[in-house]
Amino acid sequence: MDQHRRNILKAGATAAVGGLLASTQGCAQTGALAQGAPSVPPLASTVGMRLATGSIGTSGKPGIIVVLDGGRAVDLGEQARRQNASLAFDPASMLSLIASGDAGLNQARQVAERAARDNAGTIALDSVRLASPIPRPDRNIYCVGWNYLDHFEEGKNVRADKTVDKLPDHPVFFTKGTHTMNGPFDAIPIDPTLTKMTDWEAELAVVIGRKGVNIPEAQAMDYVFGYAAYNDTTARDIQQKVHGGQWFRGKSLDGHGPMGPWIVTAAGVKLDDVRVISRVNGVEKQNASYKQMYFKIPRIIAELSRGLTLEPGDIIATGTPSGVGFARKPQEFLKHGDVMETEIVGVGIIRNPIRSVA
Amino acid sequence: MDQHRRNILKAGATAAVGGLLASTQGCAQTGALAQGAPSVPPLASTVGMRLATGSIGTSGKPGIIVVLDGGRAVDLGEQARRQNASLAFDPASMLSLIASGDAGLNQARQVAERAARDNAGTIALDSVRLASPIPRPDRNIYCVGWNYLDHFEEGKNVRADKTVDKLPDHPVFFTKGTHTMNGPFDAIPIDPTLTKMTDWEAELAVVIGRKGVNIPEAQAMDYVFGYAAYNDTTARDIQQKVHGGQWFRGKSLDGHGPMGPWIVTAAGVKLDDVRVISRVNGVEKQNASYKQMYFKIPRIIAELSRGLTLEPGDIIATGTPSGVGFARKPQEFLKHGDVMETEIVGVGIIRNPIRSVA
Repeated sequence: MDQHRRNILKAGATAAVGGLLASTQGCAQTGALAQGAPSVPPLASTVGMRLATGSIGTSGKPGIIVVLDGGRAVDLGEQARRQNASLAFDPASMLSLIASGDAGLNQARQVAERAARDNAGTIALDSVRLASPIPRPDRNIYCVGWNYLDHFEEGKNVRADKTVDKLPDHPVFFTKGTHTMNGPFDAIPIDPTLTKMTDWEAELAVVIGRKGVNIPEAQAMDYVFGYAAYNDTTARDIQQKVHGGQWFRGKSLDGHGPMGPWIVTAAGVKLDDVRVISRVNGVEKQNASYKQMYFKIPRIIAELSRGLTLEPGDIIATGTPSGVGFARKPQEFLKHGDVMETEIVGVGIIRNPIRSVA
Repeated sequence: MDQHRRNILKAGATAAVGGLLASTQGCAQTGALAQGAPSVPPLASTVGMRLATGSIGTSGKPGIIVVLDGGRAVDLGEQARRQNASLAFDPASMLSLIASGDAGLNQARQVAERAARDNAGTIALDSVRLASPIPRPDRNIYCVGWNYLDHFEEGKNVRADKTVDKLPDHPVFFTKGTHTMNGPFDAIPIDPTLTKMTDWEAELAVVIGRKGVNIPEAQAMDYVFGYAAYNDTTARDIQQKVHGGQWFRGKSLDGHGPMGPWIVTAAGVKLDDVRVISRVNGVEKQNASYKQMYFKIPRIIAELSRGLTLEPGDIIATGTPSGVGFARKPQEFLKHGDVMETEIVGVGIIRNPIRSVA
């Protein structure tokens, strides 16, 4: 590990325990400053890539950014132009890259590798303002409920619907609206006149890479493009009590679904090493292994796609482990000024300040 | 009423009671033949317009079609070119027209009016293959549950969740995936290995015309672009029992949400005259007035948009009245060869054959 990377990782770790919280609060609109130096964990294999959407400087338009080891980054569109490389996708659009399949991904890798060998080909990652890797999804975000045994149990006594007392035979699916999408270091707006129960749900997000319907479980992993950190931020009172038991609206307030800091392509993640962690103001609230996930990703994809076509760029949030605020004694909820951090070990950390808009 | 229009209406009425069913079954891919002659009910005011998405001939690309009284239609893109009219929207895209606001709508009206005065400016409506007016929504379709008192009551004894026994204080919201969208005369694919309980739900769909969040009830109608007939076709067993009480997946099988035959702009519909009707193989199953709707459209828009941004082109299905198959004694469900008809009085009729794909 070189010294630069060591420093970057150290900065990330410090931030994780609160060191950057002061500068984060109240300045999420100011770009790189708000996000601090993103932590860049190593990839599980050299074939994997970290693909972000970001802009450089205050006037830059968002485009695909390849994040390298050691805190450097490649502006894919800019470098493709410099290299006269033709691309099968629009470098301003992650959805376009994903839809272009292996051909596009290989082109992206080649451009990034060439750029990395050239001093003028890379930029400092902390000069990039990161957006959600998929800022405008083409349809709602798919979500899985009750997918860690301990989270199902912790909710049992506080849920509005007391009839749900045995573990499901099938995954629970619901969706979050597209305006829930939020950047990895952007503020989450809360309106205290609308909800007083804003809760965290750290989750591993799966990004689909190929169109498919009735996908067999045995082939499901071929449909995974990559993974990201995700927080299924929830207005718990609206979810549970206001709309007849359907979770959609309590899960769909604007900005209540930050994702990022990038997508790590499937080859770059070893799922058994993944942990799903949340921290609020630096204090750990959730921490579980992928091994504790009840319905694993192949089963989720197989069940979701029965009679329902999945498309490249679709996002599936795979459920949250125990430790949410709603199930704590006493209950805890997010308030103005808090910082909610979501870490997927092996993928990255996102960090969102909570901002009252009332 | 001129003779031509009288004939068209008569053809529609005949179809409604089964006269065209024989030709509809098994030929939904053959275009105009499958849809019969669409019924064109009169508009509530001359300011209203019927806006369809359709293609002409077998090779034509879909574009916006203005449907005139008397079974004639205007190909908007083609006529704008002939008239050298500049448009603030892409005439291939209804979403683009809706997003262009009053300016675009006025341009569309002027092009259609000029075309209607010119014999070469119009085509026969039955030469147009109609698609859903919004073939590819930008996000999931919003739906309201339990929004007619009689439908709430009829479901009480058959629902899986027995805890829901009093009428909601707020609308119930859930979503349907974008691949549920289907044309007004296209086949609905059913897979008997996946569900044996495919049910109808005739609904009035509202199309949103302006971006908005926290929309006050008193201003909500200003956000309505128009109305269409919609059927929230549902796999009742998957909705009720398979996924822990969340309705999303049972509501989201591919093609299970036909819409059309066109959007009637808000000025063309008098809501108090609207009736929501379904027929299966010509036999009436549902028939209720807008007046029986529990949460009316302004309330629905106000509640849905609290902290959740609505966009031009968003679709809200406003709930179904009593008479669904699930609540009948004995229960009835749709099977291969059935024809499901959904009529919104004052808007139009859609008619979808059911086709087994297993």
